[in-house]
Amino acid sequence: MERMQANAFEQLLQALRNQYWLGSTLSLLGWDEQVNLPSGSAEHRAEQSAFLAGLHHREGTRPEIDGWLAELEADFEQLTEEQRTVVRWVRRDYDRARKLPEKFVAEKTEHASRAFHAWADARKRNDFAAYEPFLERNIALAQEEAALLGWEENPYDYHVDRHDPGMTAARIEELFGGLRAPLLELVGTILDSPVKVAPDFFRGFEVERQELFVRKLIGLLGFDFDRGRIDRSLHPFCSGDGADTRMTTRYDRDNPLDAIFSAIHETGHGLYEQGLPLEHRSNPLGEAVGMAVHESQSRLWENQIGQSRAFWKHFEPLFRQAFRSQLSGISSDELYLAINAVRLNPIRVDSDEVTYNLHIILRFELEKALFLGDLKVRDLPGEWNRLSKEIVGLEPKNDAEGVLQDVHWSGAAFGYFPSYCLGNMMAAQLWYAVAEELPDLENDFERGDFAPLLGWLREKIHRHGRRFDTDEIVQQATGKPLAPDALLRYLKERYLPLYR
Amino acid sequence: MERMQANAFEQLLQALRNQYWLGSTLSLLGWDEQVNLPSGSAEHRAEQSAFLAGLHHREGTRPEIDGWLAELEADFEQLTEEQRTVVRWVRRDYDRARKLPEKFVAEKTEHASRAFHAWADARKRNDFAAYEPFLERNIALAQEEAALLGWEENPYDYHVDRHDPGMTAARIEELFGGLRAPLLELVGTILDSPVKVAPDFFRGFEVERQELFVRKLIGLLGFDFDRGRIDRSLHPFCSGDGADTRMTTRYDRDNPLDAIFSAIHETGHGLYEQGLPLEHRSNPLGEAVGMAVHESQSRLWENQIGQSRAFWKHFEPLFRQAFRSQLSGISSDELYLAINAVRLNPIRVDSDEVTYNLHIILRFELEKALFLGDLKVRDLPGEWNRLSKEIVGLEPKNDAEGVLQDVHWSGAAFGYFPSYCLGNMMAAQLWYAVAEELPDLENDFERGDFAPLLGWLREKIHRHGRRFDTDEIVQQATGKPLAPDALLRYLKERYLPLYR
Repeated sequence: MERMQANAFEQLLQALRNQYWLGSTLSLLGWDEQVNLPSGSAEHRAEQSAFLAGLHHREGTRPEIDGWLAELEADFEQLTEEQRTVVRWVRRDYDRARKLPEKFVAEKTEHASRAFHAWADARKRNDFAAYEPFLERNIALAQEEAALLGWEENPYDYHVDRHDPGMTAARIEELFGGLRAPLLELVGTILDSPVKVAPDFFRGFEVERQELFVRKLIGLLGFDFDRGRIDRSLHPFCSGDGADTRMTTRYDRDNPLDAIFSAIHETGHGLYEQGLPLEHRSNPLGEAVGMAVHESQSRLWENQIGQSRAFWKHFEPLFRQAFRSQLSGISSDELYLAINAVRLNPIRVDSDEVTYNLHIILRFELEKALFLGDLKVRDLPGEWNRLSKEIVGLEPKNDAEGVLQDVHWSGAAFGYFPSYCLGNMMAAQLWYAVAEELPDLENDFERGDFAPLLGWLREKIHRHGRRFDTDEIVQQATGKPLAPDALLRYLKERYLPLYR
Repeated sequence: MERMQANAFEQLLQALRNQYWLGSTLSLLGWDEQVNLPSGSAEHRAEQSAFLAGLHHREGTRPEIDGWLAELEADFEQLTEEQRTVVRWVRRDYDRARKLPEKFVAEKTEHASRAFHAWADARKRNDFAAYEPFLERNIALAQEEAALLGWEENPYDYHVDRHDPGMTAARIEELFGGLRAPLLELVGTILDSPVKVAPDFFRGFEVERQELFVRKLIGLLGFDFDRGRIDRSLHPFCSGDGADTRMTTRYDRDNPLDAIFSAIHETGHGLYEQGLPLEHRSNPLGEAVGMAVHESQSRLWENQIGQSRAFWKHFEPLFRQAFRSQLSGISSDELYLAINAVRLNPIRVDSDEVTYNLHIILRFELEKALFLGDLKVRDLPGEWNRLSKEIVGLEPKNDAEGVLQDVHWSGAAFGYFPSYCLGNMMAAQLWYAVAEELPDLENDFERGDFAPLLGWLREKIHRHGRRFDTDEIVQQATGKPLAPDALLRYLKERYLPLYR
């Protein structure tokens, strides 16, 4: 590489570092908002975050960046593999940021904020009509955004690609198509089973004790508390990065499994962040591929691992030790069945890992139709209910439980839902791949040793940053293209023996 | 005011707002560092804060600010009183920031950081000689800073003025001069008293319960939890401002008074911040006068109020209710004496409110001598020990307990110590002023009603922001210039009846 080029690359990295510090600060402000912020300080924090978001945007759209990129692209072949990865992604992100006029971004952000409040209000009052114009405008702006960036022919693809680089609606259609019928059949078998999960029998699990148990558990999974924390918030999440990973969960005296599985899920995200190359955290070499890959990590730990017999062979004695009296009347089999309960639920976020995927297929069908113009927003509630009956297997009692249940569309997060189900597919596929390479894995879990599994994930997924896109990294890690087979196999192997 | 001028003022305010958001973010990062930051994330946070500090400095030294100020100064008489306050202080801060070359600031910051580590290490090993060159350089840089800003004739005055606008070494000398001899006499009387405080008898105060008690207590004092919090940290502090006030205290099972009084102290700071005009929080109309005035608020609540009989008439029953068994063997008189214990202590931060002032006089004498060139750093330990015997009444066992005990000089915070004692003087003076105007105050306290006192402080001190300097605001609030009489009177009235 020529000296001039080396210089351009160094300056590019420096600009990325500056942007990183602002992004990292915004992320901490967001965490603090969910975890600590006094209620009366919300307006103050909103202005503070908006100010920093403005700086962040300005830093990422500096015209010099274009110059450095052009210089590097002029002799692309001279660049190392790593440098090409950086240049490719920064060019994508930079062009997207530059092509959106500041006025458009401000309007979109402002409208999404208004739509969020309209949605929260409409859900409370079960009044879709009041929210309808806000959602319509959100979709129109999302279409406009795609057009501004040159995706006017396939606007929904743009929004999918935003969350999962390399993914398209057609590819998802193919994947979900292979999943839908066999999954519906499996759900039918489970629901027809004489085995029924007992109604909730968890009562009086002291919250401080749950918190101690959860911290011990996720520490054993490999979460590094020297560079991270887990706190409490209304909705569990994981933020920050490997330099300072901030996760949350929530605690309910009468539902200890919720705290445990939310924490394991977030720990899956946290372990991915902690496994990305720290020294590259301000550039694409140290960033996550996308949402689906992120979800594959959280779902793998939460489901394939956290809901397994082997896992609970190790943790059940510790759980009983922490809550002797509360668990005294509950047998091991009852506990395990409660952990793997399957029930139809109109609400996505309250659904088990089997029926959850049906919820995602429903949303994908509707998003696609909305973006293709095949479905008008005013017809959405009826179509939601009709398709919900057809795909999920039940019709919501009302719009609050139906089309108004999710926050995503109100915040203009279109193309996001599919990532959850893609993540489930990847998780299962990774699971069979690692199980083949490391046949002793379940014995490790029984001993409370998760290091071999984590080592494999670090090697196959984490350390690569954004070197590969969504499809490539799955191929790379499992030797096969992403497909629905593994998820179907896993669900059958896990649930058919339980629900005979 | 002309339209042009109005425009300049509006632009100035906007620049101050931008700078405010960065400062407010830096403050939150600092809070998080003390309260939440995982140990392995310290280096990450240091870089993050340094980056934002750079932006903050750049925002505060934009050349346009000079232009707007010049425009406003050209027709100063046309400005409103409020606008003049803003212009005056912004000019001061701007000129100070501009006159210090960026290279100088970076060198000073970097050296202070190195000196801090050298100090921590030297204190651990009781090795002043290893720290000596670092302190020498800190002082040389502080002298250079004063010279760069045009205070070469009186560099120590500059550092005093930095913390307490309008204050000078000569004025402090006069105030401390009036305090020293009578205070020494009072300490002698107390130490000669046959009344001796029993050794610590507090044991086993559950920390969670202390935390509940502390929160209830400071809520009753008037702290607004809708716009603030109190958490735990190694060293108690108060940060943020009235939009989001973040205080901390610390908890020790065997020392509940430490948590309580640290919390009351920080609440005094917090109430001041919450009483400043919120809408002006990004400009001098909504900022605190200086360190001494800030300390006057914390000390007033901690000492005049928190250590009074009337206060404990209300809180003792609540305290006993929270810790029935732990307090069962302790009489009300014993408790009250423990709250007002006076003992010579070589360590400033562990000293009671009587002898504390002697520690400050000692440090003031030494700082002055160092800056006048009358004392060489190499002679500092000997001089510390000699003066400590003379002023505080005991000689430290070693340098770790003596000249190395405080962090301030290692961080180049010269001229800061006097604020503590000035704050004590102001607190006492405010106390007699308010007691005269509101004769029912002690009855209010006995009923747990602190609103009348807080209302008076808001009226006399808080709402003014930086409209008056240190001396002016005391004159304004109490009708008299700042003097040591009130503090001496208060200490005698509080302690002589106890230590007969």
